[in-house]
Amino acid sequence: MKALMISTDNFEDLELFYPLHRLKEEGVTVELASKKGGPITGKHGYSIGVDLTLDEVNPGEYDILVLPGGRAPEKVRLEERALEIARFFFRENKPVGAICHGVQILVSAGVMEGRRATCYIGIRDDLKLAGARYEDKEVVVDGNLVTSRNPDDLYAFGRELVKKLQE
Amino acid sequence: MKALMISTDNFEDLELFYPLHRLKEEGVTVELASKKGGPITGKHGYSIGVDLTLDEVNPGEYDILVLPGGRAPEKVRLEERALEIARFFFRENKPVGAICHGVQILVSAGVMEGRRATCYIGIRDDLKLAGARYEDKEVVVDGNLVTSRNPDDLYAFGRELVKKLQE
Repeated sequence: MKALMISTDNFEDLELFYPLHRLKEEGVTVELASKKGGPITGKHGYSIGVDLTLDEVNPGEYDILVLPGGRAPEKVRLEERALEIARFFFRENKPVGAICHGVQILVSAGVMEGRRATCYIGIRDDLKLAGARYEDKEVVVDGNLVTSRNPDDLYAFGRELVKKLQE
Repeated sequence: MKALMISTDNFEDLELFYPLHRLKEEGVTVELASKKGGPITGKHGYSIGVDLTLDEVNPGEYDILVLPGGRAPEKVRLEERALEIARFFFRENKPVGAICHGVQILVSAGVMEGRRATCYIGIRDDLKLAGARYEDKEVVVDGNLVTSRNPDDLYAFGRELVKKLQE
């Protein structure tokens, strides 16, 4: 199985590395895509190499999409290719995990209408305006979609991502 | 089940938070002990509250001991109470996980003689001098002992910690 993560500089470090290692633990190959190649660096200074650019992504190759938070999603959501990739996963009903500000990418992709979801508290009103039903819980699972609020929720986020892959 | 983690300021952030969330995912209650109470802060700036001081620890209450790395273990290994706690887990043959510099605490506790283990490459000679058989692998499991080299190995470290709890 293969997982795709999309992010850029100023990602939330734990929110990128926790799901990455958690999925690797399950034997999943995890690939990280960004607008440009080269390493990207988190808010807390961790760096990681990008595996492929957004233009190089063939979303049909992947079994799950994971969107970490931090300041990165406000950059990622400006990339039309990132939004197309997100829409592909929703159209195909494939698992999508988004945590904290990662949900901003889904708001811009226009896929949140009528969906139950959570996110970082500071953007909950944006999520509601996008038509989602916001819930203040450590993890919300609604069909293909798994969302969490912040790094404190990673234990629950990881658990539900893994469950989705086992369905 | 209950897990005990021991660390202090300048812990390696991912090495503390990954096992913490991974064990929580399994329903394990994780408690963090340090010399003093209050929050401790990692090398990368993440903070976490301490649940109890080393003096308050009753090691018999816990099913596993986990020792993250960073600069913290060079402080922790100076605390005789931390070494006593580590020796207790070895005497009782209960699971112990140590990653990166976390192994320094086990070297000081005098429990590495004849054990297969790994650690951060910069301290491998210390591990050998303590009588251990060093292996350059992402994770080494030898009886109750699970060791890894660095944050890149967290997926394997987490996997083996969970397996130990299931034995």
